[in-house]
Amino acid sequence: MNELQKAICRDGELLPGGVIRVERFLNHRVDTALARQIGQDLADAFRDAQIDCILTVEASGIIFAMTTAMAMGDIPVVIAKKGNRRNLGDDMYTADVFSFTHQTTSTIHVGKRCLEEGQRVLIIDDFLANGEALKGLMSICHQAKCEAVGAGICIEKTFQPGGKLLREAGVQVVSLVKMDRKEDGTMCFVEE
Amino acid sequence: MNELQKAICRDGELLPGGVIRVERFLNHRVDTALARQIGQDLADAFRDAQIDCILTVEASGIIFAMTTAMAMGDIPVVIAKKGNRRNLGDDMYTADVFSFTHQTTSTIHVGKRCLEEGQRVLIIDDFLANGEALKGLMSICHQAKCEAVGAGICIEKTFQPGGKLLREAGVQVVSLVKMDRKEDGTMCFVEE
Repeated sequence: MNELQKAICRDGELLPGGVIRVERFLNHRVDTALARQIGQDLADAFRDAQIDCILTVEASGIIFAMTTAMAMGDIPVVIAKKGNRRNLGDDMYTADVFSFTHQTTSTIHVGKRCLEEGQRVLIIDDFLANGEALKGLMSICHQAKCEAVGAGICIEKTFQPGGKLLREAGVQVVSLVKMDRKEDGTMCFVEE
Repeated sequence: MNELQKAICRDGELLPGGVIRVERFLNHRVDTALARQIGQDLADAFRDAQIDCILTVEASGIIFAMTTAMAMGDIPVVIAKKGNRRNLGDDMYTADVFSFTHQTTSTIHVGKRCLEEGQRVLIIDDFLANGEALKGLMSICHQAKCEAVGAGICIEKTFQPGGKLLREAGVQVVSLVKMDRKEDGTMCFVEE
């Protein structure tokens, strides 16, 4: 059992409807030692992948993008922004991201000057459920002529289709914790 | 000259209207080694202040909140959220933050379970201009019966009133870089 699994057992709350409450240690109040360990674990998983830079989307993804980048020897982090494009100019890559939670489509963007062509990119995010954010980030990689080498995730909900779709598309997805939902609606860890 | 000043000289762009473009190394594409050094510099500045936890507001503030917290020995980071309150319940501290850029008021919030009473809090953010975000974060500290011991900032625009107002209110504000605007509209570093 890794440190994130232990923290979920100790302090997480699994609610009906597939909601995993981890805001007291993961992404609202951050246990910094745990975030550092998550970064180390994700860096270890992609140790031989010759990653040039990390790509994430604001906001919570930044926590683990930073700790992973530091564990990989201070490689750069590129943060896709949501909404407001002021100060960036028109010179940017964009992707539409549908939110099942809010039933809305939003646009994420990365300034073209912030993501160089030809980079080997590792995508990092805290959650993987339907995979919409990751698909948007992969589209931005593609537009920038970068290679999305893989995706490093804190918590994957295997009862939602994102992880399966991405793996079928050939993406190396590493999730430190996988949660499944049983027929009675309760959740459980997926043991590999 | 500290590392952030050097980076601004090397890669920053100072535009008319008091706009400082630093997105290629500070808060859109992040130079991780620089972010680590900024965290160390802010941690050093508050070394004797007995800080219990860091408070910031999403999104860019998270970068430097994390590196400062790591430099302070992995103390916790609390991230005030904007907008959507789903998954948090009603049990939260809130503050209204006026944006001069967008001329709109938004609400930031912190779950009450994420900020314990009686903590000595260091507020971290990337920019200080009018100080509205910092005032909101200080209000949240006050509601939580915590002490806002100080504020650590990457770049302060001294030609806008936030820093002056906060210092007059007794807050210890440490800005790694202070930029002033001359009469001809160009910007320059403030030397201490």
